[in-house]
Amino acid sequence: MNTAHEEGNTIFPKGEQAPADYFLGTAWVKLLLPNDSILHAQIGNVVFEPGARNNWHTHAGGQILIVTDGVGYYQEKGKAIQVIRKGDVVPIAPDVKHWHGASHNSAMTHLAINTNTQNGIVTWLERVTEEEYNSVK
Amino acid sequence: MNTAHEEGNTIFPKGEQAPADYFLGTAWVKLLLPNDSILHAQIGNVVFEPGARNNWHTHAGGQILIVTDGVGYYQEKGKAIQVIRKGDVVPIAPDVKHWHGASHNSAMTHLAINTNTQNGIVTWLERVTEEEYNSVK
Repeated sequence: MNTAHEEGNTIFPKGEQAPADYFLGTAWVKLLLPNDSILHAQIGNVVFEPGARNNWHTHAGGQILIVTDGVGYYQEKGKAIQVIRKGDVVPIAPDVKHWHGASHNSAMTHLAINTNTQNGIVTWLERVTEEEYNSVK
Repeated sequence: MNTAHEEGNTIFPKGEQAPADYFLGTAWVKLLLPNDSILHAQIGNVVFEPGARNNWHTHAGGQILIVTDGVGYYQEKGKAIQVIRKGDVVPIAPDVKHWHGASHNSAMTHLAINTNTQNGIVTWLERVTEEEYNSVK
């Protein structure tokens, strides 16, 4: 059993259900900082229920994930899935194609900090297949 | 009693004691993301024990605070102290003189996200006096 998940994440409200066009399974998005044209940053909190994930995508200005609860997956195109856990920080370089989500058996919550948003925020791409999601080792 | 504080913040290790030159009282700093020259961001987690605060300071590239536990204070020069609590997000524009810290009776933990670090990270200034700290309403 994952103790971190049992404790739950009560820092932020769960927000709105994530758009089905860009997420598979159930996820929740709470916008914490709308895109700020001076700070060049946008921040959201995302809760993924077990098995949920977003589509492959890129960020023209880069992104940083901070995992605040649970256990999830992060994958960059052409690389193996990384298991990410509460307390992990994942810097994502501009234009790197990737996806993230919960693990098979645990929810995962992360802050998503979009940086250099004057260059763009997100470009959504194709779905993560079951084969890709199940390739975790 | 502050329930949020009772739950405690166990997301990150407490880190190193904050430098006495720039902090009054006991605070702890854990660097989560060293300054990244591509993302133009640096992220730390800061735990302030009750009464602890940092000096007045500015960020040439701006900063965003995300309060993850407890109750604290945030003040911009010439304005009243704002009480900030778990779940609050505080965007700080470039070059705005300010300080932050715990409240009198509760610890406070926040993420500190420095943005646009190509412009600079922090310029430390004078101490926050007891009179300033006690001016909270």
